[in-house]
Amino acid sequence: MKIKTAKKHFTAPLYLESGRILEPYDIVYETYGELNEKRDNVVVVCHALTGSHHAAGLYEGDRKPGWWDSLIGDGKCIDTTKYFVICSNVIGSCFGSTGPMSPKYPSSEPYRLRFPVITISDMVKAQISLFNSLGIYEARAVIGGSMGGMQALCYAVEYPHFCKRNIIIASTYATQPWAIAFNKVAREAIVKDPKFNGGMYDPKELAEDGLDGLAIGRMSGHISYLSKDSMQKKFGRNYVETEGLYELFGRFQVERYLDYNGYNFSKWFDPLSYLYITKAINIFDASRNYDSLEDSLSNIESYLMLLSIKSDMLFFKEEMEVIKMSMENIGKKELVEYHCIDSDYGHDAFLVESEKFEPYIKKALSVDI
Amino acid sequence: MKIKTAKKHFTAPLYLESGRILEPYDIVYETYGELNEKRDNVVVVCHALTGSHHAAGLYEGDRKPGWWDSLIGDGKCIDTTKYFVICSNVIGSCFGSTGPMSPKYPSSEPYRLRFPVITISDMVKAQISLFNSLGIYEARAVIGGSMGGMQALCYAVEYPHFCKRNIIIASTYATQPWAIAFNKVAREAIVKDPKFNGGMYDPKELAEDGLDGLAIGRMSGHISYLSKDSMQKKFGRNYVETEGLYELFGRFQVERYLDYNGYNFSKWFDPLSYLYITKAINIFDASRNYDSLEDSLSNIESYLMLLSIKSDMLFFKEEMEVIKMSMENIGKKELVEYHCIDSDYGHDAFLVESEKFEPYIKKALSVDI
Repeated sequence: MKIKTAKKHFTAPLYLESGRILEPYDIVYETYGELNEKRDNVVVVCHALTGSHHAAGLYEGDRKPGWWDSLIGDGKCIDTTKYFVICSNVIGSCFGSTGPMSPKYPSSEPYRLRFPVITISDMVKAQISLFNSLGIYEARAVIGGSMGGMQALCYAVEYPHFCKRNIIIASTYATQPWAIAFNKVAREAIVKDPKFNGGMYDPKELAEDGLDGLAIGRMSGHISYLSKDSMQKKFGRNYVETEGLYELFGRFQVERYLDYNGYNFSKWFDPLSYLYITKAINIFDASRNYDSLEDSLSNIESYLMLLSIKSDMLFFKEEMEVIKMSMENIGKKELVEYHCIDSDYGHDAFLVESEKFEPYIKKALSVDI
Repeated sequence: MKIKTAKKHFTAPLYLESGRILEPYDIVYETYGELNEKRDNVVVVCHALTGSHHAAGLYEGDRKPGWWDSLIGDGKCIDTTKYFVICSNVIGSCFGSTGPMSPKYPSSEPYRLRFPVITISDMVKAQISLFNSLGIYEARAVIGGSMGGMQALCYAVEYPHFCKRNIIIASTYATQPWAIAFNKVAREAIVKDPKFNGGMYDPKELAEDGLDGLAIGRMSGHISYLSKDSMQKKFGRNYVETEGLYELFGRFQVERYLDYNGYNFSKWFDPLSYLYITKAINIFDASRNYDSLEDSLSNIESYLMLLSIKSDMLFFKEEMEVIKMSMENIGKKELVEYHCIDSDYGHDAFLVESEKFEPYIKKALSVDI
């Protein structure tokens, strides 16, 4: 599999949904496989809240491959001998695309809280400008889970001719208060951490020590990514400090898991990016700027493959079913296919049990439209 | 209804499950109605994590009555013209019973982190000593929701002759990792708040300004007390700062709810009590010290009324069903009755839709045994 990582610089302004302008901006992206002559073998992969453009392959010296390496590669579900796969880091993130810690042109000082609020539509708009700059004007498919699924739905509604197949996994038509509440705990924990210092923290210091507030916020996120059953199977009531049951700070295994993942995370993710991206998730509503969700979905001319997860505790399967039913209500039944994946892994299932999604993704990639 | 609030001082040691000793200790309690001559009309009410002995009635100058006033009173479900109702503040709490901010005898300095770890069994043991000091050696019923339900179950297992009817609401046989994870976010947020200062905070300062970490922890708790459907009905995607959708810190209604309840809470609850009581909840396991849950439940000689809540996202109905099935497995089917209350309010339903529980509580209080 041929992997290429690159950064593209854009001097033309990006007009944001808020009315503000991002100018200039960078997008970091990665591609797998090769673009064919007809340029009709593009598969766009969209990442989730804390993901990056590094979706597949193993970097030299790394232990872990890209976040969806199980699905993307030669002969794999998203077959890089057939498809030219492209995944870009969303604007607002912290892996190379322009975000709150990028220099605010023409100064060399970071934006920090002066960075404009970004929406899912803005992320997609920036991706479209990237594709156009690469001479790509259409895609065979767009696929994404969680916030990636929001982007995939946004492509279908706002760029109905860009892409023929939209594969939307473990996502929603509009973020519900349950998910906003989990984000709230995280946002509050970040902002109230004195080391956050009103956004004026030293990023080098955080890369070494992490930010407690971001760690605590990540723990709140992890609850929503797992499920009661997956936690029960994975951790049960196992106690780590076996002798210390009656010590105030002795830990259950589930607590150690949250400690480990929370505090590690706070060293490799930027707290301002976390604030901006959760804001984008919170305000995502596919019906905004339309009279109704049905009105919005009536733009769609592509085929939607909707895959929910039975045990998803972040974006409940009922939310995905709303998209399916709305499509049916507006006479687009033949354009939508819905499956609920039977997994105990909760929201994270699209990452940890990706094999259960393969048959449906394969089908969606090859469906005639 | 006759209300009496009192504090009892105990000089005899309380031998704790951890092997440590609490000596001396106080218990604050409240009673409603009158003890009859036969002393057989006692109903013990057990409070939850942040509750207190003030279960019913309105204090002069207060706007809000006790936390279960809807159920307790003259002619109400728990009828104070018939029953002598008693509710005490659990040890470890912060409303008058001995807790981490009580003076460590013989000094006048508070225990703080030197306070011993308390278990649900310890709370119940202290209550039993209170009842005995009042000349009460048996109760008609013990009732409680959430952590109160853990106590009610503990009475049934550990004091099988004290009480004839145990009404256990929205609780569990053993705290599962899902609930421990929510507590973890809160515990971590408290401990990592610099103002917590390793437990050496100034309580007067916190009473005025609150502790951000406790507020954030409370927010995490609130998610688990509500449900996705109750949040959707209560808040939807309503935006409070109507003009500010594209401002980073504009708030959704659900965020304002969490802000309001979180930051208020952090002014009236003690962070060390929160740590000690969540620890007691985390380590609760009715089968500890027994070979199995069934082995533990085989002690029970009283009638159990188990009431779960369909939408409970903290202690799932399946956990209550484990108790029912275990009782059936050990041939105690005639001693257990189980109902799942159909409510969208989530865990909080036992407080906000208490009328739905009334018929079952009434039945349990009058059942012959």
